Amino acid sequence: IEKPKDLCDREKNTNVRISLPAVCFVWQIAMIILFGVFIRYNEESSPFWIEHRKANNISSDIENDFYFRYPSFQDVHVMIFVGFGFLMTFLKRYSFGGVGFNFLIAAFGLQWALLMQGWFHSLDYSDGKIKIGVENLINADFCVAGCLIAYGAVLGKVSPVQLMVLTLFGITLFAVEEYIILNLIHARDAGGSMVIHTFGGYYGLSISWMLYRPNLSQSNRLQGSVYHSDVFAMIGTLFLWMFWPSFNSAITDHGDGQHRAAINTYLALASTVLTTVAISSLFQKHGKLDMVHIQNSTLAGGVAVGTAAEFMLMPYGSLIVGFCCGIISTLGYIYITPFMEKHLKIQDTCGIHNLHAMPGVIGGVVGAITAAAASEAVYGHEGLINTFDFEDAFKNMTPTRQGGHQAAGLCVAICFGVGGGIIVGCILRLPIWGDPADDNCFDDEPYWELPDDEESIPPVLQYNNHMRNKDV
Amino acid sequence: IEKPKDLCDREKNTNVRISLPAVCFVWQIAMIILFGVFIRYNEESSPFWIEHRKANNISSDIENDFYFRYPSFQDVHVMIFVGFGFLMTFLKRYSFGGVGFNFLIAAFGLQWALLMQGWFHSLDYSDGKIKIGVENLINADFCVAGCLIAYGAVLGKVSPVQLMVLTLFGITLFAVEEYIILNLIHARDAGGSMVIHTFGGYYGLSISWMLYRPNLSQSNRLQGSVYHSDVFAMIGTLFLWMFWPSFNSAITDHGDGQHRAAINTYLALASTVLTTVAISSLFQKHGKLDMVHIQNSTLAGGVAVGTAAEFMLMPYGSLIVGFCCGIISTLGYIYITPFMEKHLKIQDTCGIHNLHAMPGVIGGVVGAITAAAASEAVYGHEGLINTFDFEDAFKNMTPTRQGGHQAAGLCVAICFGVGGGIIVGCILRLPIWGDPADDNCFDDEPYWELPDDEESIPPVLQYNNHMRNKDV
Amino acid sequence: IEKPKDLCDREKNTNVRISLPAVCFVWQIAMIILFGVFIRYNEESSPFWIEHRKANNISSDIENDFYFRYPSFQDVHVMIFVGFGFLMTFLKRYSFGGVGFNFLIAAFGLQWALLMQGWFHSLDYSDGKIKIGVENLINADFCVAGCLIAYGAVLGKVSPVQLMVLTLFGITLFAVEEYIILNLIHARDAGGSMVIHTFGGYYGLSISWMLYRPNLSQSNRLQGSVYHSDVFAMIGTLFLWMFWPSFNSAITDHGDGQHRAAINTYLALASTVLTTVAISSLFQKHGKLDMVHIQNSTLAGGVAVGTAAEFMLMPYGSLIVGFCCGIISTLGYIYITPFMEKHLKIQDTCGIHNLHAMPGVIGGVVGAITAAAASEAVYGHEGLINTFDFEDAFKNMTPTRQGGHQAAGLCVAICFGVGGGIIVGCILRLPIWGDPADDNCFDDEPYWELPDDEESIPPVLQYNNHMRNKDV
Repeated sequence: IEKPKDLCDREKNTNVRISLPAVCFVWQIAMIILFGVFIRYNEESSPFWIEHRKANNISSDIENDFYFRYPSFQDVHVMIFVGFGFLMTFLKRYSFGGVGFNFLIAAFGLQWALLMQGWFHSLDYSDGKIKIGVENLINADFCVAGCLIAYGAVLGKVSPVQLMVLTLFGITLFAVEEYIILNLIHARDAGGSMVIHTFGGYYGLSISWMLYRPNLSQSNRLQGSVYHSDVFAMIGTLFLWMFWPSFNSAITDHGDGQHRAAINTYLALASTVLTTVAISSLFQKHGKLDMVHIQNSTLAGGVAVGTAAEFMLMPYGSLIVGFCCGIISTLGYIYITPFMEKHLKIQDTCGIHNLHAMPGVIGGVVGAITAAAASEAVYGHEGLINTFDFEDAFKNMTPTRQGGHQAAGLCVAICFGVGGGIIVGCILRLPIWGDPADDNCFDDEPYWELPDDEESIPPVLQYNNHMRNKDV
Repeated sequence: IEKPKDLCDREKNTNVRISLPAVCFVWQIAMIILFGVFIRYNEESSPFWIEHRKANNISSDIENDFYFRYPSFQDVHVMIFVGFGFLMTFLKRYSFGGVGFNFLIAAFGLQWALLMQGWFHSLDYSDGKIKIGVENLINADFCVAGCLIAYGAVLGKVSPVQLMVLTLFGITLFAVEEYIILNLIHARDAGGSMVIHTFGGYYGLSISWMLYRPNLSQSNRLQGSVYHSDVFAMIGTLFLWMFWPSFNSAITDHGDGQHRAAINTYLALASTVLTTVAISSLFQKHGKLDMVHIQNSTLAGGVAVGTAAEFMLMPYGSLIVGFCCGIISTLGYIYITPFMEKHLKIQDTCGIHNLHAMPGVIGGVVGAITAAAASEAVYGHEGLINTFDFEDAFKNMTPTRQGGHQAAGLCVAICFGVGGGIIVGCILRLPIWGDPADDNCFDDEPYWELPDDEESIPPVLQYNNHMRNKDV
Repeated sequence: IEKPKDLCDREKNTNVRISLPAVCFVWQIAMIILFGVFIRYNEESSPFWIEHRKANNISSDIENDFYFRYPSFQDVHVMIFVGFGFLMTFLKRYSFGGVGFNFLIAAFGLQWALLMQGWFHSLDYSDGKIKIGVENLINADFCVAGCLIAYGAVLGKVSPVQLMVLTLFGITLFAVEEYIILNLIHARDAGGSMVIHTFGGYYGLSISWMLYRPNLSQSNRLQGSVYHSDVFAMIGTLFLWMFWPSFNSAITDHGDGQHRAAINTYLALASTVLTTVAISSLFQKHGKLDMVHIQNSTLAGGVAVGTAAEFMLMPYGSLIVGFCCGIISTLGYIYITPFMEKHLKIQDTCGIHNLHAMPGVIGGVVGAITAAAASEAVYGHEGLINTFDFEDAFKNMTPTRQGGHQAAGLCVAICFGVGGGIIVGCILRLPIWGDPADDNCFDDEPYWELPDDEESIPPVLQYNNHMRNKDV
């Protein structure tokens, strides 16, 4: 009897016993060496802070940047590890992989990000060292977020080794793209609508396009959620939702900058929840809500005010942005994701196109418009300079031109995302990474020791398993 | 064959496909318009902060109110969305509704609260605008808490549209009641024992009384928890418990006020845990603990020190308050809740009477006594004025009289709760809101698309379902 | 028919209906009395703060210690209650006990810790009162952590009454040991590698040794996890992992001390994750990851930088410490825990030897080396004095000697842990505490009212239960 093709495929080797430890050890040792050569404490985290304080007439330890940013840092940290991690536990048999691989690649990514971003932004030319403080930690977490977004598109379809490669290149591309957008183009992007979400979204979608699996329906039985996995995912959703104001305000200007960014984000997110619920109910036959929308689209408003959160978007402006994004993102889940899968060969497990890519682009556009509309009447003279950093080489910038620069930044983010994703996708197609077979996707079984309760999974699954065995 | 009455009832229309989106859209658009007309940034969150700082000789950005209150704000935010949300996931088949509808009404409520409270407290008479900053965000979250408490009483028995109505009126009543208690009566209520918990508790109980369902026992099979839903609920409990010190100190005076409120709350809560465990064990046949008590009564101490947390309650005073509340609240679950259901026709799903209403009243009384006992010996001259705000129109207040005012405030909170609840309950009885039938209560099925694992619910339930189908 | 021995054993009395409430009430009342006699607010949490501020020329309320430490305090609080609590929910039928008893003993322990540590560290000799502020709350949480670590070793094998006794003595021993190490020996231990983790680890292991159960295999069927209980445990893991930088920096010096401790811990933890994953995969037949390692060993790096986090460990030094600890801790789970159970009669449910005891000792050694290697070139003159507190009686200390003192501190921690554990273990062997029989271990049934879904536990268990009943 001839073996059916998909059976051959099933025999794909998912054993990562050599490759995963090898990658982890080699890269971690590389990190240690590079940190040894390059990374030092900055003046606010070294014992010379006392001298620095006195020399700069700083009256109290409380003015150390640590106290301005540490609470926001911890909130961002929770978003990265619990927020993204638990949001990805929604699949019925991929919760370990969702939260566990998220943990792994975030922990690696933040080290590499400290180096990459450090070379671009925190290099002390006097001694060639990168000097780090709490703001670098936040930026490293931000940088990691881009890769975690990309993970959402390929969730359940890749091996941990592939994810490490995706992260290594993702962080590298991110740092370059960020440098171009923020420093060369001089766009502002406090909450990273462009730099993080647009880039991360298109990076992930392009990779997913390159890794298209025509027979993915073979693991259909595992693609949904179960009751409790949906509740776990709500942990992720809520921590992302609650701490998004900290995300968008974490690295904005001290004082009113952080204050305003938090308010705008808080409002945009509140508005998104209502329109998400409205659309979710309206487009279902019996008006029932869909957990996928509640878990994801409610966050789109936070993405879309990322760039403009520190500007004078005005409270009603934030509400409007959130209002539109809830609608667009939910409709994306209903119409665009199936369309992309069917016609564009892009399989987007978590729907990052609706949660990050589209809202990120909207955020970039809103940022450009808000910047272009800025005036001294609204910001005050000093406020305008301060908010848009019209200093040094850019002291002749005008708000209108700044709007153009913002738009240029958005284009760069999209290009890096798409281009980078295609290249990295090619690399990930090499048959050496231990990725799972089509009917083994969305399953923790290939990469995790599982407890004995497999038989407790829903009977409907057992039935499917049973049928599958018979088919074979 | 004549249809049995309960079958007719089963055919109640729970389709909210028109009403829910309509309410969400109309109210969100109303919010955008009202925010456009009324809401602006205050001087600490606008770019004019720089000028403001210089004009007021403020030496550092760190003195922006943002840095005094933002960490507490985020803790309160977690309590509202994860704390209340997950505490309500304990029912075996209503976890989506518990955490999801909590999310919806909180997101709507906070917007309406910013407006209502803004008109009373933050209106800038020079230009007729409400000027908001981080303190307004905290107060909006507080205001929402009152409605979420009320939701606890009717959990599983109402439609999302009813919840939106409950919230709209609840926020409105809250803002008026708060203005009367804090501004007109000049009572102090930092942690909201009266303003939030007493009001919210009686508001919810009155509504539940108006919506009494004599045949609720038809959904008995769904009224309990399952093992994992109880663990989910502990997430809610613990985040409420841990962050309650932030709740009670979030809007107290800068410096010692916030410091003392956090300490008192921390201590009261610790004490409550021990007496809750003691009573829970003592009143069960085999000394076994009941998860309902651990999930709820352990929080009663935080409610009951809400008013007095900023006063000189003394550490041992906090312990005593917590000690008593753990006992009273647990006994409430054992005796009062069943009594109320049987004899008073009040069905209180989460037992908010034991967790919010009673401890809130105790908190109001403790606050009145502590205020009346205040003296310059204990507070210092400036401390007394500062703590009780004996300034301007109230500069001739004495502690004894303040005690009386506190008691008056408590009465107002009860009246608003009961009266408001009865009126809103009447409105919610209209047959247009899509509420579930008696045997459809405590079930996500009417309002949520559920994953395919329904068959995995405990066999005991399947049996019940089976029986039910036969009965029909 | 003669009753088999294990059946007799099954009939052990686990009814704690008298003893548990009695212990809770008596101890809580004792706390109230002792707090009444001894505990008062300190000058930063009392209304005299205003006078204190003016007298000390403190320009702003923001310099109140509350604002330096409260965000870290709340993070530590989350680690104690959600971190430790949920980490212990991994067992399939002991999640209530894991998170619930953790809650109980932490709430009791922190009160007793405020007193014990207060007498040693915060006694105001002018009036014989302990004056507390936010730093005392953090230290109380720290003190409790030692006992929660010990709980990990005996998880599932003791009654709540035994846990209360374990905590009472544990806190007492902790406070004495801490006073000796920090004040008499003048060792530095910001993150408590020695004081908390080494002590707590050996305390728990010694108790577990004294309570050795030769027939524990009778409850083998309950010793593992189920799919969702492993996901719950990841909540604990991640909150511990994310907030560990706050743990290690919570009570370090204002300014650069807190800043540096946070950075070092962040880096050490990131590095640990990679080597944990590597070893976990490498030592499994098919390269699959083991959730036990991911849940626990990823945290070892945080333990091991506890002492040195505030020193100039350097970023690469932190990475190296984390690198080694990930390897050692994971190998400990693979080899040492089974060895200890088989040959040393130490049954360590959570593997605290690998997560706390060993990494704690490593942390002590790293601290000693880092201290001994300190120099003015690296710390600056003032920085050196400040970081190591070379003042007053210790103003003639040298870094080298400080290294010796650190090592001495480590020895004291081990001695107190082992010695205290043996004594307390003897007390806990008395047959009056209501501990469960061997085949009743790891089961919530003896101490908790359980919901009706027992039949929904995995069939494999039902089978076991069935077999058990037949055996009987």
